[in-house]
Amino acid sequence: MKGKNWTVYLSGEIHTDWRDQIAAGVADAGLPVKFLDPVTDHASSDDCGVSILGHEDNNYWKDHKGAQVNAIRTRTMIEKSEMVVVRFGDKFKQCNAAFDAGFAAAIGKPLITLHDPDLTHPFKEVDGATLAVAETPEQVVKLLAYVIEGTL
Amino acid sequence: MKGKNWTVYLSGEIHTDWRDQIAAGVADAGLPVKFLDPVTDHASSDDCGVSILGHEDNNYWKDHKGAQVNAIRTRTMIEKSEMVVVRFGDKFKQCNAAFDAGFAAAIGKPLITLHDPDLTHPFKEVDGATLAVAETPEQVVKLLAYVIEGTL
Amino acid sequence: MKGKNWTVYLSGEIHTDWRDQIAAGVADAGLPVKFLDPVTDHASSDDCGVSILGHEDNNYWKDHKGAQVNAIRTRTMIEKSEMVVVRFGDKFKQCNAAFDAGFAAAIGKPLITLHDPDLTHPFKEVDGATLAVAETPEQVVKLLAYVIEGTL
Amino acid sequence: MKGKNWTVYLSGEIHTDWRDQIAAGVADAGLPVKFLDPVTDHASSDDCGVSILGHEDNNYWKDHKGAQVNAIRTRTMIEKSEMVVVRFGDKFKQCNAAFDAGFAAAIGKPLITLHDPDLTHPFKEVDGATLAVAETPEQVVKLLAYVIEGTL
Amino acid sequence: MKGKNWTVYLSGEIHTDWRDQIAAGVADAGLPVKFLDPVTDHASSDDCGVSILGHEDNNYWKDHKGAQVNAIRTRTMIEKSEMVVVRFGDKFKQCNAAFDAGFAAAIGKPLITLHDPDLTHPFKEVDGATLAVAETPEQVVKLLAYVIEGTL
Amino acid sequence: MKGKNWTVYLSGEIHTDWRDQIAAGVADAGLPVKFLDPVTDHASSDDCGVSILGHEDNNYWKDHKGAQVNAIRTRTMIEKSEMVVVRFGDKFKQCNAAFDAGFAAAIGKPLITLHDPDLTHPFKEVDGATLAVAETPEQVVKLLAYVIEGTL
Amino acid sequence: MKGKNWTVYLSGEIHTDWRDQIAAGVADAGLPVKFLDPVTDHASSDDCGVSILGHEDNNYWKDHKGAQVNAIRTRTMIEKSEMVVVRFGDKFKQCNAAFDAGFAAAIGKPLITLHDPDLTHPFKEVDGATLAVAETPEQVVKLLAYVIEGTL
Amino acid sequence: MKGKNWTVYLSGEIHTDWRDQIAAGVADAGLPVKFLDPVTDHASSDDCGVSILGHEDNNYWKDHKGAQVNAIRTRTMIEKSEMVVVRFGDKFKQCNAAFDAGFAAAIGKPLITLHDPDLTHPFKEVDGATLAVAETPEQVVKLLAYVIEGTL
Repeated sequence: MKGKNWTVYLSGEIHTDWRDQIAAGVADAGLPVKFLDPVTDHASSDDCGVSILGHEDNNYWKDHKGAQVNAIRTRTMIEKSEMVVVRFGDKFKQCNAAFDAGFAAAIGKPLITLHDPDLTHPFKEVDGATLAVAETPEQVVKLLAYVIEGTL
Repeated sequence: MKGKNWTVYLSGEIHTDWRDQIAAGVADAGLPVKFLDPVTDHASSDDCGVSILGHEDNNYWKDHKGAQVNAIRTRTMIEKSEMVVVRFGDKFKQCNAAFDAGFAAAIGKPLITLHDPDLTHPFKEVDGATLAVAETPEQVVKLLAYVIEGTL
Repeated sequence: MKGKNWTVYLSGEIHTDWRDQIAAGVADAGLPVKFLDPVTDHASSDDCGVSILGHEDNNYWKDHKGAQVNAIRTRTMIEKSEMVVVRFGDKFKQCNAAFDAGFAAAIGKPLITLHDPDLTHPFKEVDGATLAVAETPEQVVKLLAYVIEGTL
Repeated sequence: MKGKNWTVYLSGEIHTDWRDQIAAGVADAGLPVKFLDPVTDHASSDDCGVSILGHEDNNYWKDHKGAQVNAIRTRTMIEKSEMVVVRFGDKFKQCNAAFDAGFAAAIGKPLITLHDPDLTHPFKEVDGATLAVAETPEQVVKLLAYVIEGTL
Repeated sequence: MKGKNWTVYLSGEIHTDWRDQIAAGVADAGLPVKFLDPVTDHASSDDCGVSILGHEDNNYWKDHKGAQVNAIRTRTMIEKSEMVVVRFGDKFKQCNAAFDAGFAAAIGKPLITLHDPDLTHPFKEVDGATLAVAETPEQVVKLLAYVIEGTL
Repeated sequence: MKGKNWTVYLSGEIHTDWRDQIAAGVADAGLPVKFLDPVTDHASSDDCGVSILGHEDNNYWKDHKGAQVNAIRTRTMIEKSEMVVVRFGDKFKQCNAAFDAGFAAAIGKPLITLHDPDLTHPFKEVDGATLAVAETPEQVVKLLAYVIEGTL
Repeated sequence: MKGKNWTVYLSGEIHTDWRDQIAAGVADAGLPVKFLDPVTDHASSDDCGVSILGHEDNNYWKDHKGAQVNAIRTRTMIEKSEMVVVRFGDKFKQCNAAFDAGFAAAIGKPLITLHDPDLTHPFKEVDGATLAVAETPEQVVKLLAYVIEGTL
Repeated sequence: MKGKNWTVYLSGEIHTDWRDQIAAGVADAGLPVKFLDPVTDHASSDDCGVSILGHEDNNYWKDHKGAQVNAIRTRTMIEKSEMVVVRFGDKFKQCNAAFDAGFAAAIGKPLITLHDPDLTHPFKEVDGATLAVAETPEQVVKLLAYVIEGTL
């Protein structure tokens, strides 16, 4: 896969700049990686269903419409990726990220999780399905460098 | 999938210009989408079997030959697409479009339906298998923009 | 498969007694066939979503909830069957049946359609994906007898 | 599927008696359902890896060993089920349950979620992949009755 | 698989008694094998389409109808079998049997061919996809005994 | 798929120039088709195993080695194609071509057969699995033009 | 899966009694497990090809014939199992067992390895694909008890 | 596949220059082949897990971490290849290579083994799953030339 882009989906937390850190590290290392990601603007992600397909009085259906529109993007991108990195932050969106991890595992995508060491116990089942558990974006960059270039 | 074409199959009604409306909207928005479609010339679609493979006295076999020739195009295109939009119009070809929707759903293609709101009840089973139900071609364009670009 | 039940899913029209005719014919012939079917009581099928999961003000969501509950039954049964018979009647539910036919075709289930000869043209794409097109329930019984017992 | 057991996997929360409530309701209704579940004894689930395969000094590896042993049970059971019910409680184990939901969705198992209405927003992506969202065990029993027996 | 029936599909030649020889040998050896086979009555196999689904003036469509009805039986049985034995005789039906062999190979069924040694060259591509090439029904019986019982 | 090459595998007879006729017709029509084919030099196809991997005293193993080496090419190419055309000539190689047809059918490739009308009866099972039965290379060219360009 | 047999394939070493130890432990514990295994009589396993299908002068082809006959048994049994245990002993047959492990991993079977701790380094890639690494048959029995009964 | 790169994964032995010999032969022959390979620097391959993801006191977990990181590369590359060549040398890494062979066989990749003739007996099961068994890198180059160019 030298001389060919690798496609990596970055799932999970949207409130810190971990995606930017990985992208910057990969750019510095000159790795041929293209990143895909969910819509990371919280408001757009919440409102996309009703904004595009029409207002809902009931918040349940507002959420449902939005979630299904986001799923068109998310599932297509997971399926087109060679690798999926799932970031669990301290608070929000963890269920969503764990769902993506389960989906990716079931269709055989190599899975990397990225979370603080003190989250090891609650995420142990997810980690048990991964091929690497990283604690920092730098480690993810090093993993990509090793997997793609074959050198430490 | 930025920087890469998305392929979208447009199934269903052939008597109005909804495909052109979507294509124009996508062109205006500068989205990297390539559209595939069934043969939309009604006469060609009906006659292709006997015209290419030989006359039939019996209309049943004329239709059968034509339908199978069209299926070579249709199924290949559905399988090559990242997304399938199915348009149900007021009258013709609805079974064909519903068949395509079932086929696409079974192989896991994200499905968008496009029909008037008064068709909600008869199409409820098909809609129940979709990720978005649109009423206008403009909404389909906005969905594609959101799914591909990630912005409302 | 002698000495073993065959499972056959009967999809489509719910306003005539075609399912009973096939079941009676199969019983007379002593064939080891178990039939599965969608919920054929129209009111239950329409109301199941709101009746079980809670009222909806908006008919669209009433239909959506019901359709998805029915899909739990329908898809499970299609996947468990060795064969799918799809009946197109003169009026209602044809989209639903065509969707089932597309779904069954995509996952490789042998498909039999059952409809009047004057429906040949509008259903030609669906028929083109079948292995047999029958006009009467008696023909379906004979097909089952031949396929299972191997004798005319 | 009348006359045949349905197999249903009950994933998620282990601190309330929701599984017992569903089982009791199903028994009262005389439904032919066999339930499968993860190991619901918290201590066994945490200790199984080190208890069987040997002590670990490092808690990370203790958790890893246990999670992988539990996965032998969990994945086999999800794959053998016709339907998966996922319960999200107020606090623990939600990531695990969301991972199971993603796994089940990706392999095409009909998915039912069970959670309080105030969890709708955080779980909207998971709910968007389900065919039914229930709030009470009684609703799950009614869903099973309808899907299996076909009557409300 | 001790204590469980093995299902074996016997494809190919219908003009000699090779199926009976294998069945007799298996019965003598007390092996738990259930055999499936195509319709081996030549006239029924040729006429089934028109006999059940209606007369055709054109022999092409008579053959087409019959072949598709036979395919309902054939493909279902190949998919339900653990093993496929394909017999090539001196003259008739070889294409049909080779088609079955290709179908079975593509879906991963262990394949045994049975033919005279002087047919080795014309059938070399088919033989190249098999796990055993037998010359006599006795050898097929011995293969089944070894594979199932594990003893020579 | 306008603007993209279609890949078509041409299986079967190697003693007439049907492949050249199709290629010439496709070139005249300016269709974006890339053809793949088995090794059509009879001697190379027969000798490749022993020529590359070492002499065999026994013709059976010579044939076996050659057939398996050819299978590396054949199966890879069938899997990479969007469509498979199978030519049955009057005499040689028909089993091989029928095996390819069965293989292609089982993995869902649209199948076109090409043979004289007097071969209809012996090939009826293969034809029953195709989407088009052509009698001349010109018809195959017209089929490709219609399927790819959508015009008669 | 209470109340239902689990099927477990025992791959690998044939020179010690580890299979008997596991079977005895499982019988003592009253677990509903059915074991499958390769042919463990070394001479039969080596000679089956030539004994059944005819003598070979060349040892290469003797081995090839035998290996393919054994593969009919082995692959069918791996595919029918819910779980695969692979035993690496000190010397023989390790490649065969590692091949089985790779095959089982690729089709998603939960994998348990059983080997001495001093084999950890050479088998690290195989162990990396397992869900449990055991050192003794007793541990395998305990794993089965936990996975099936859910209690330590 | 003329005019298109073939992708070939080279699995197995890392202590001789067989990969270089094949690459040189392919370059001399002007074949459009791109090679993929595992990390062949022994120290990097052993240390990658702890070097990137953090130190381990226990060698078992050092090996486990490294093996799983290497698996991200290995499995992705096997899945992206059209063909897999597995080299068994005299001593090291044979289990790893046999595991790769089993994995590749299970997902239907054409498999070529490369080993000395005196390894025929211990590797007979692996060889039984291949389409070609070569003894020298030159033979592998000739196989690639024949498979891709179609000429001896």
